[in-house]
Amino acid sequence: MDTWYFEKRGWDSQSAVADGNRFLIANGYMGLRGTVEEAARLHCPAVNLAGVYDRHADRWREPVNAPHPLYVRLSLDARPLALGETEPVSHTQRIDYRRGVFSRHTDFGAAVLESERFVSLAQVHLLAARLKLCFREDGEAELRTGISTDLWDLNGPHLFDFAFSHGQTLLCTAVTGEKKIPLAVAQRAVCDFRCTERFETGEDGVFRVLRFAVKKGDVCRLTLLAAVFTGLDTPDPAQRAVTLCNQASRQGYAACLRESDEAWERVWQASAVEMHGDDEAALALHASQYYLNSIAPRHAANLSIPARGLSGQTYKGAVFWDSEIFFFPMFVHTQPEVARSLLRYRIETLPGALKKAAEYGYRGAFYAWESQEGGAEGCTDFNVVDVFTHRPVRTYFRDKQIHISADVVYALRRYYEITGDDSLLLAGGAEVIAQCARFYLSRATRHPDRETVDFADVIGPDEYHERVTNNAFTNRMAAYCVESALALRDIFRARPDFIAALTEKLDYARDWELLADLLGRIRKPRTRKGVIEQFDGYFALEDCSLDTVRGRLCDAREYWGGDHGVAGPTQIIKQADVIALMALFPEAFSDAQLAANWAYYEPRTEHGSSLSACMYALTACRIGRLDRAWELFEKTASIDLVGGGKQWAGEIYIGGTHPAANGGAWMIAALGFAGLRVEKGRLTLSPHLPKQLTRLRFPVTVGEERLLVTVTHEGWTAEKEE
Amino acid sequence: MDTWYFEKRGWDSQSAVADGNRFLIANGYMGLRGTVEEAARLHCPAVNLAGVYDRHADRWREPVNAPHPLYVRLSLDARPLALGETEPVSHTQRIDYRRGVFSRHTDFGAAVLESERFVSLAQVHLLAARLKLCFREDGEAELRTGISTDLWDLNGPHLFDFAFSHGQTLLCTAVTGEKKIPLAVAQRAVCDFRCTERFETGEDGVFRVLRFAVKKGDVCRLTLLAAVFTGLDTPDPAQRAVTLCNQASRQGYAACLRESDEAWERVWQASAVEMHGDDEAALALHASQYYLNSIAPRHAANLSIPARGLSGQTYKGAVFWDSEIFFFPMFVHTQPEVARSLLRYRIETLPGALKKAAEYGYRGAFYAWESQEGGAEGCTDFNVVDVFTHRPVRTYFRDKQIHISADVVYALRRYYEITGDDSLLLAGGAEVIAQCARFYLSRATRHPDRETVDFADVIGPDEYHERVTNNAFTNRMAAYCVESALALRDIFRARPDFIAALTEKLDYARDWELLADLLGRIRKPRTRKGVIEQFDGYFALEDCSLDTVRGRLCDAREYWGGDHGVAGPTQIIKQADVIALMALFPEAFSDAQLAANWAYYEPRTEHGSSLSACMYALTACRIGRLDRAWELFEKTASIDLVGGGKQWAGEIYIGGTHPAANGGAWMIAALGFAGLRVEKGRLTLSPHLPKQLTRLRFPVTVGEERLLVTVTHEGWTAEKEE
Repeated sequence: MDTWYFEKRGWDSQSAVADGNRFLIANGYMGLRGTVEEAARLHCPAVNLAGVYDRHADRWREPVNAPHPLYVRLSLDARPLALGETEPVSHTQRIDYRRGVFSRHTDFGAAVLESERFVSLAQVHLLAARLKLCFREDGEAELRTGISTDLWDLNGPHLFDFAFSHGQTLLCTAVTGEKKIPLAVAQRAVCDFRCTERFETGEDGVFRVLRFAVKKGDVCRLTLLAAVFTGLDTPDPAQRAVTLCNQASRQGYAACLRESDEAWERVWQASAVEMHGDDEAALALHASQYYLNSIAPRHAANLSIPARGLSGQTYKGAVFWDSEIFFFPMFVHTQPEVARSLLRYRIETLPGALKKAAEYGYRGAFYAWESQEGGAEGCTDFNVVDVFTHRPVRTYFRDKQIHISADVVYALRRYYEITGDDSLLLAGGAEVIAQCARFYLSRATRHPDRETVDFADVIGPDEYHERVTNNAFTNRMAAYCVESALALRDIFRARPDFIAALTEKLDYARDWELLADLLGRIRKPRTRKGVIEQFDGYFALEDCSLDTVRGRLCDAREYWGGDHGVAGPTQIIKQADVIALMALFPEAFSDAQLAANWAYYEPRTEHGSSLSACMYALTACRIGRLDRAWELFEKTASIDLVGGGKQWAGEIYIGGTHPAANGGAWMIAALGFAGLRVEKGRLTLSPHLPKQLTRLRFPVTVGEERLLVTVTHEGWTAEKEE
Repeated sequence: MDTWYFEKRGWDSQSAVADGNRFLIANGYMGLRGTVEEAARLHCPAVNLAGVYDRHADRWREPVNAPHPLYVRLSLDARPLALGETEPVSHTQRIDYRRGVFSRHTDFGAAVLESERFVSLAQVHLLAARLKLCFREDGEAELRTGISTDLWDLNGPHLFDFAFSHGQTLLCTAVTGEKKIPLAVAQRAVCDFRCTERFETGEDGVFRVLRFAVKKGDVCRLTLLAAVFTGLDTPDPAQRAVTLCNQASRQGYAACLRESDEAWERVWQASAVEMHGDDEAALALHASQYYLNSIAPRHAANLSIPARGLSGQTYKGAVFWDSEIFFFPMFVHTQPEVARSLLRYRIETLPGALKKAAEYGYRGAFYAWESQEGGAEGCTDFNVVDVFTHRPVRTYFRDKQIHISADVVYALRRYYEITGDDSLLLAGGAEVIAQCARFYLSRATRHPDRETVDFADVIGPDEYHERVTNNAFTNRMAAYCVESALALRDIFRARPDFIAALTEKLDYARDWELLADLLGRIRKPRTRKGVIEQFDGYFALEDCSLDTVRGRLCDAREYWGGDHGVAGPTQIIKQADVIALMALFPEAFSDAQLAANWAYYEPRTEHGSSLSACMYALTACRIGRLDRAWELFEKTASIDLVGGGKQWAGEIYIGGTHPAANGGAWMIAALGFAGLRVEKGRLTLSPHLPKQLTRLRFPVTVGEERLLVTVTHEGWTAEKEE
């Protein structure tokens, strides 16, 4: 079995949106949803752009979808041969994970349409497609192809002032509504058959209409080369788009694809995990790695990755803690330059975090829960729509999920500890850590007659329980942040000038003292029979089963959390919380502690977030519950392959790919099954290989070297790659 | 116009429940709802007992309704002559506020039934009724009278192990479910006509059935004397009930009523406010005073008054801050022995408040938001039922409405300041103040890098906004409480032994110091153009009209508050909050401040609580907005006369009388219109008499004296009563 591609046979309109995620091709700059060339808006085709945000009226700010330049629609004797309009004899679509290539094969009876396409990993502004048409009937064929502006938007429209030009190259330009960012899409078509050509320009875009007579047995080929640029890339997106189109056209489709393939080959050499013993699992893991690798911002040194990648506008295209806790590990161990980009994004958006803290009356840096460009907070106070009243409901993700700043610090510090490279700390990272610690200092509270300090009124990873006090995860992360700030003086003890400059720049002298005092005071979690209480009062909540809670739902789409949700008053949690803490600080807990907490919390976890299963799987490895770890690995790794996951939260669409689970799959394989740990460039492994696997092999970048790790039930090796 | 009674003509089944409140007769020990003798359970007849609580299964604990001993049902030739079953020719019912007497006159065509009844203010265990029947047709009459156990309960049943005996005196005994409190009800009937007598005992009670032949023109009279005792009154309720019945029977109905009338006369001499110029208003004020006077616990020295008085089981029969803020003023100025009872209730229930504070991890005294016997907290975590899902919703009245402890202290301190009497402080009051201040000390929070102290995560009087920080009312009340504790050392500077003993008993030495440090740190409210921000962030909420918010309701019965309610995300508030603060601390604010805040908050107030209008009226007097003060007075004073007020909160019945508004009506008249203020036995008046009134006259008890205050537009006098 080839564990590097996924193929789906048959066509049904209902799956088109989910398949748009599953067959996504992307290159970090843009994501082209896996819809067919002729897809109507109903099926949500989109060219989703990384880092280009727009807000329409008072709706949510979200990333912009570019006009779609690989649009093609075929008809024969005025009969459409198009999915969604015509029932096909057969249809197959396929994604090649190794190369990032989408292809389809559709038999319409009168003609067979085959195509493949890619967005170049070598030239991130470039998209290309190649179509092959085999006719089984004589007739008058028509191909309508061009740049479609009939865009799918969740909270649009976002593009205005459309202008079109045509000729050898079609060009569409527009500007975004809010910030007037110009955007250009060019497309060039090359066909190997004689035809008449006519241009159409309208509200739905600019198109060329090719008409040609065909005979049974005729085979016709069409190649499309397209380019997308925005004003964030260049002062003249239109010219750059046209130039790139023409250049690619000269280079030819095959050469362009070869360049992209080579780029993908380098990615896989650095990161591909080979699992032996279970091909389904191996495929799922390749898929996961593909979905995450395909959205890595390799073209930029200071971008991060949205929580639904480049699969659409879900979650406002914003960057969450997913970046630091779920994406970062694979990248830091395989492609540290991507990990650095994620962290530089946070360093460069520090001003946004300072502003947010000040907005709430605190000092220091409070990172956005949903970070958009410049660190602007995309999360609103009303993130859920009540399904009964259709009214927005006040949620507290924005203001109370304070662990986000510590999550950023966690990755910054782990980067230093894993790589031993202090360059990011010197280039702004230390300042981030200091400002985050200052935030926790000013957010902490102490009763005048008590010695300990609380973090009150917060939300931990389990979002179903809002506004709790002393969430164990949050308190530990805050303590880690404070400890990391204090550790800076140790890390840079050979550079007292650096610390002195930092102290002076941030007016930090008093804060060093306050932080030293704070650290020991942060409330430790309460425990009961070794089980950490998730937050103060958690054990007093109703202790009932997941089925009981699910049975209380009045509407399948209603939100489970908060005071009105079914989970809020119970011990049922959305996702790993105490267990996430234990996964992030493995050395701080004994196996017995881990086992007790795992046994308590796992049955009480809905796993209602794709961030949950991987934390449970990681920790399950350690305590020898390998059967459960394996189940949770399969669940995590296959999430985008089977196209599962919640599509709705209340009345809000939340579908898309799940990069956190994708990263989680790598974490379970490498950190869990293989027990990989790298500290200051020293690699150790303590494998827990499930019985389903015979061998696990993956590359790890350690310093300047790449090691190839092999784990079997007999032992492990780590060889330097030549 | 006689401004001392209310009469209603006509009968409609729909109004029977509301009329049960409006025609309530009560004596502090029990309340007999204003339903007719033959009322079926549907019309909610009840004999509501003060201070006797029971909890059935896991439902809400609530006061017990006793079996009903004034039940009478008439029939003629087997045809019922009973409201609810028979359409009357005419029906009138009436309540005499001066005497606390209910009467009715019902013409059934075939017969006319007249009755009157009272619960004795002189003998609080005694109830009596007198019926007169005038027959217009010959026939065979039947009167079924006795003790009905077909009880109306909101969260019952509460009585078990019923036992019945009959003879000259009917007796019903039972015990409560939870605490096995015995209860006995006896009834004796005297008739002036010949009849056959038969007894019936069944699930619905014990009855005597009197049958007699009547002729057109016959007039028959029946007198009922009944008694209620519980195990909280005496070890042998049954014997006491029978004995009292027999004694009253010997004494006779008229003599019993005379005793009660005399007791009422003393109440009115001490408290009746006479308004000249508007008879409707005068009647409404008499009604208000009646509803409040009739439920004063004069028979006990240590009881308080439930928020819906003795009109039923609404709000669990619990004692709220209404007692200290809304009931206390009339009593302290007219019947200080009742004010002392309210305060002694708090002093004696201090252990409950200490326990509640400890439950939440705090020191000191956190009084119950809904206080039941012994100070037990009757408020649950789920006080609202969602109308859309029918699920209970987590509310925060119990745990976050922390101003309650300061409200208790406010009344304790005001009692001392008004009367100059330190006996309550010496007899436990000082300890209450110290323990409440200690609670605020331990509830306060301070950020490690800030000088000020916050009260975070609270609810102020405006319950629609849950879990807010630095509610201006709460912070000021907490500061007053702390200041009152510190003032104890001044008040008792001549008794250093007392303070020393208190300090030692409570281990308070360190707390004195911490409190002294705390007082100046408590965050002062933010202001904008002189308007106090109700809590941190209030001004940032959506600023829209009451109509806009009301227009968003999806169901007339849905709850407005919390994160799901229509008011939560807006500046629309339930009731006076900043204005309540200004009403309680009139000397702390200038007229200009008051005017600015009044103008801002009044239009944003739903007045969704009967506690609201009176605070706005009181403050309106001061700033010369007498027309608005008058409107709000009329609204407040007439609430139980017109039978208005919300009947539902979500799916919870909240109907009943409104003692807080009743007390509020007195406050507006005496403290507002007359501008009464008594400090250490010195009376001052600064009248703001509305143009609708020509004269206002009322008694005030000052020390051992009673003064009769008269206010006209020309001036005022205060004469000593002879």
